[in-house]
Amino acid sequence: MHLIVTIVRQCFRYKHIANNSFTTKCLSYFTYSKSFHTSICKSQWGKNKKNRHIKLQWYVNTMSDPNIEEVLAPLRASVKEQGDLVRKLKAEGAPDIDVKKAVAELKARKKVLEDKELSLTPNITFDRAKMEDLLKRRFFFDQSFAIYGGITGQFDFGPMGCAFKANLLQLWRQFFVLEEQMLEVDCSILTPEPVLKASGHVDRFADLMVKDIKTGECFRLDHLIKAHLEKICADKKTTQDIKDDCQDIIIKLDGMNKAEMNEVMKKFSMKSPLTGNDLTEPIEFNLMFGTQIGPSGLIKGFLRPETAQGIFVNFKRLLEFNQGKLPFAAAQIGNAFRNEISPRSGLIRVREFTMAEIEHFCDPNDKSHPKFKDVRNTELLLYSACNQMDGKPAERVTIGSAVDTGLVANETLGYFMARIQQFLVKSGVDPIRLRFRQHMANEMAHYACDCWDAECLTSYGWIECVGCADRSAYDLTQHTQATGIRLAAEKKLPAPKIVDIVEATPNKGVLGKTFKKDAKIISDALAALSLQEVECLGQKLAGDGTFDLHIGDQAFSLSKDMVDVKKYQKTVHVEEIIPSVIEPSFGVGRVMYAIFEHNFKQREGDEQRTFLSLPAAVAPLKCSVLPLSSNVEFVPFIKRICEYIFCIVFIALVAVVM
Amino acid sequence: MHLIVTIVRQCFRYKHIANNSFTTKCLSYFTYSKSFHTSICKSQWGKNKKNRHIKLQWYVNTMSDPNIEEVLAPLRASVKEQGDLVRKLKAEGAPDIDVKKAVAELKARKKVLEDKELSLTPNITFDRAKMEDLLKRRFFFDQSFAIYGGITGQFDFGPMGCAFKANLLQLWRQFFVLEEQMLEVDCSILTPEPVLKASGHVDRFADLMVKDIKTGECFRLDHLIKAHLEKICADKKTTQDIKDDCQDIIIKLDGMNKAEMNEVMKKFSMKSPLTGNDLTEPIEFNLMFGTQIGPSGLIKGFLRPETAQGIFVNFKRLLEFNQGKLPFAAAQIGNAFRNEISPRSGLIRVREFTMAEIEHFCDPNDKSHPKFKDVRNTELLLYSACNQMDGKPAERVTIGSAVDTGLVANETLGYFMARIQQFLVKSGVDPIRLRFRQHMANEMAHYACDCWDAECLTSYGWIECVGCADRSAYDLTQHTQATGIRLAAEKKLPAPKIVDIVEATPNKGVLGKTFKKDAKIISDALAALSLQEVECLGQKLAGDGTFDLHIGDQAFSLSKDMVDVKKYQKTVHVEEIIPSVIEPSFGVGRVMYAIFEHNFKQREGDEQRTFLSLPAAVAPLKCSVLPLSSNVEFVPFIKRICEYIFCIVFIALVAVVM
Repeated sequence: MHLIVTIVRQCFRYKHIANNSFTTKCLSYFTYSKSFHTSICKSQWGKNKKNRHIKLQWYVNTMSDPNIEEVLAPLRASVKEQGDLVRKLKAEGAPDIDVKKAVAELKARKKVLEDKELSLTPNITFDRAKMEDLLKRRFFFDQSFAIYGGITGQFDFGPMGCAFKANLLQLWRQFFVLEEQMLEVDCSILTPEPVLKASGHVDRFADLMVKDIKTGECFRLDHLIKAHLEKICADKKTTQDIKDDCQDIIIKLDGMNKAEMNEVMKKFSMKSPLTGNDLTEPIEFNLMFGTQIGPSGLIKGFLRPETAQGIFVNFKRLLEFNQGKLPFAAAQIGNAFRNEISPRSGLIRVREFTMAEIEHFCDPNDKSHPKFKDVRNTELLLYSACNQMDGKPAERVTIGSAVDTGLVANETLGYFMARIQQFLVKSGVDPIRLRFRQHMANEMAHYACDCWDAECLTSYGWIECVGCADRSAYDLTQHTQATGIRLAAEKKLPAPKIVDIVEATPNKGVLGKTFKKDAKIISDALAALSLQEVECLGQKLAGDGTFDLHIGDQAFSLSKDMVDVKKYQKTVHVEEIIPSVIEPSFGVGRVMYAIFEHNFKQREGDEQRTFLSLPAAVAPLKCSVLPLSSNVEFVPFIKRICEYIFCIVFIALVAVVM
Repeated sequence: MHLIVTIVRQCFRYKHIANNSFTTKCLSYFTYSKSFHTSICKSQWGKNKKNRHIKLQWYVNTMSDPNIEEVLAPLRASVKEQGDLVRKLKAEGAPDIDVKKAVAELKARKKVLEDKELSLTPNITFDRAKMEDLLKRRFFFDQSFAIYGGITGQFDFGPMGCAFKANLLQLWRQFFVLEEQMLEVDCSILTPEPVLKASGHVDRFADLMVKDIKTGECFRLDHLIKAHLEKICADKKTTQDIKDDCQDIIIKLDGMNKAEMNEVMKKFSMKSPLTGNDLTEPIEFNLMFGTQIGPSGLIKGFLRPETAQGIFVNFKRLLEFNQGKLPFAAAQIGNAFRNEISPRSGLIRVREFTMAEIEHFCDPNDKSHPKFKDVRNTELLLYSACNQMDGKPAERVTIGSAVDTGLVANETLGYFMARIQQFLVKSGVDPIRLRFRQHMANEMAHYACDCWDAECLTSYGWIECVGCADRSAYDLTQHTQATGIRLAAEKKLPAPKIVDIVEATPNKGVLGKTFKKDAKIISDALAALSLQEVECLGQKLAGDGTFDLHIGDQAFSLSKDMVDVKKYQKTVHVEEIIPSVIEPSFGVGRVMYAIFEHNFKQREGDEQRTFLSLPAAVAPLKCSVLPLSSNVEFVPFIKRICEYIFCIVFIALVAVVM
């Protein structure tokens, strides 16, 4: 108790020695740990809590302000009109290109609505430049290799950022891996090409770009077209017709394919905005970093673009580790890499980032979750695909009712969404600036069949921090096809089942004598026959006594003595299923950034004094012992105090984290 | 207390249900946590401790067995003879090639001595195949991408290995970063070429290899030559002369350069051992993985081969964070990559691995350490370069006396060596199978000026697990030269010093008028003049009134009115120093492997039952609650017990770790 009082007194003292530059310095990187401090010295830190409360109240008021709703009403109607059109086109089976264009228009209208909404909320007194200055000055993070000029999209975390990140990951491990008894793995980053070919990344993980034919400068094609057309529109000499045409293209840009964009580029004879030189045809630029594994230069590899594939290729081992039982979840924390064409927005879009991913494997016909009842009453702000098409705002509902009404597809998806929210709020995300947005069909990744993003509202707008996707059986199926190794689980049938088996067993001796070297491909072809084909083969052999087996261009005439067709019944107790995968995937850098923005404070009455007010569990510094005198006689006592405090803080934290 | 008894009873129970396959399974991946269990149930686990003790005793006895020493004596003498020769050659300033050959011979003799030593120690009953089977079966780790055929030198850690690794890193963070108040950073993996050019990795981080000219198959040149010559020696038809020649080359191989090896290859007309095809000339194969950063393909980058460079390029920020004061240490845990030509030996030589590195920056003239007195009495097994040259064994001495006698160069190096030993032993390395071996001058990395490796004795021999090098000012100097940004610190002088300053200040107006566009390069050249040159300039201007400034091929005639030469005295309180760097660098995978070997056990009387007996702090499972009945009524109670145990174990661990 005595020691705790010491800390409190120290904290108190800071407030009164504003002119001492050393204490001032300590003060600002003494990143207050909210709940921890609150618990030990309420009178000091209650103030912060109060501030926060006021803000929440104000925000909630804004959300239901009738004046604001009046302004938004026509925009909402415009979105709904277009949403209905998209539904109609889809229902009528309209051509793909028409649907795409309608969806692009829908997205543009949604964007207008969202921008208006954000512009109408009273200005949050948030000064990004001030926060960035604090984060740099206290070395939370900064550009990598800055003394060499730096590389965009790469950041180094300094002592404060690194401690914060380590604490956040530790909390994540505690919250997900330990509490949910997940199987954590740590897989290789360098991935050979065939793995990412199977997962679809080699073919589809690309953005379109064009190059200046002389300088080789690269431009992301959609950004280039948009900038060019906006420039035309801004020109006073441009006729209204052309302006309308440009606006129309900008709206539809998102849904355009390579050929369409190329046409636009040619129509407006676009050149390099930097040099005026000609541009190449659009190139599909794969976002993965390529390299060669081994010295021969023959094994092509990539830096993984997500950690998930490491889990999928280990599925068999993990299932075995779990004694063959479903459901189970595997988790992984690690770095992934994407060679963005033009990285920007600080930690939001980077080339190298830490992910924390969970792959929950379950029966595709039973996505219930045993712990769903524990979260049933958790309220989430859900922005469904349907509401997005109707121009309606996000709605606050319990996850229980969302699953009951089918808005969220199943319990497991719902359970993870609730847990994601709990985790984010525990680590410092403001619950009012957090929503779950459902992907619309056209924006889903190539592997997903349903997806909800946890988005945080920041000064960059709503940014995706955690994706929660139902990848169905996509990845396991792909890797099974690519390797021939069945990535499947066995499910016990409710009752044993009797099944008909038909097997064609080749008589290898006779086949070998008759067909020599072709005998093997015949045997293989027989093994690959479907149930129906084997039955047909059996009937033909029983009737005509011969059967013509076609393999490629060749036909082989088989006689009765060459193949034995057996038909029998078998009692089976299990069936083979390819598990579905529910994947919560955390972008750690983005979560960190959202926490920074949501916990950045300026001291009342002295706005130059800025600080972060972080929850104890993630705060880089838990408490600080700063002697007021530099008298050397105090040194051994200070050392002892530090050692004791170390233990106390550690144990107190265990209590806070639990 | 009641709960603890429950665990103990469970543990006890395992021993008696050998026939139940489920419990058996649980038993073997219930990786016993030694000290933790010891503290709560001495009677159960004391047995292991006893076993271990016997082994240590036996080992110590072996080390000083006079019979064994008798066998080793001639080998030791042979090493000493050669060591003396090397010293003599160096003292005489003999040609480099002669020294190299003598060193190679010395190394060969050392190897013979070491092999003999190991062969004479009674066989440790260690079965690597059994341990590897356990590690695979319980999915500690296994080959990456195995379903795709796998890639050598890459491993995935499963749930057990991953938890073990995470605990080990957490302990490391606790032990070094927190206790020593280091500045931990987390830097980018993708590194642009100029950074690694400056650090010397682009030019010197390479192995020699040759390729099969038809298939492109690669061979590490030294391995290839050795295998070829050994084959010749094994052939009965080979004459003694040729055999001697081959042996001589094998011995000298390590010290040979590219041209010498090429000569050997040609002399014996070596072909590809796989196809008999011709081989290319030797190629220097850089061990870094290359890639392109950004879409243009113009920014070349590499995956970092060590984490250290990330710290060096952030030196200025870190120094500022530490308020400009020396000494301080920065630390980083992260992945590094080396494209080994032929990776092997499991976790020992891999292409992708986790490192934990510390860079301790200090005054080059004062490498004392304030906490050295805390470790002064720690005993280490030191295998000095001198003993290696004299054929003497390693010696057990306190680090205090090693530093006092100058065997270990300075307190900081000594302090870290002691702390490394403490950490390794705490995490499960057997102290008897741990030694510190000093690098001999010829094997030092290009950046190091002194280096001690913490080596662990495993079934692969003594393997380097932690390097502890004095990198002096090498890296900071290199990056300063490459960037022009001074990576230096200021040191307060014991007393203020008066220094003479001579400055040449250009009169820009007159210069501009006279030399137009050349004025700038003249100004720059003036700023770059040395003290002596400025003095000379001043004298010439004062005397002749003109001075010819030569820049490249051009000469510019300067007159008095163009340059103002000032001479004055200044009192300085600080001097600029480039800090020295002491670097403890942990290969996490290697440390893990050594811990596995040192803690692998076979059950007495049932050698098929194998397990790992790990210290509590790193054990992947701390304790396990296994209900003896599957009665559903018990489920809620089990859940509660688990929750309680979770807290208790956590708090108990804090106590153990501290």
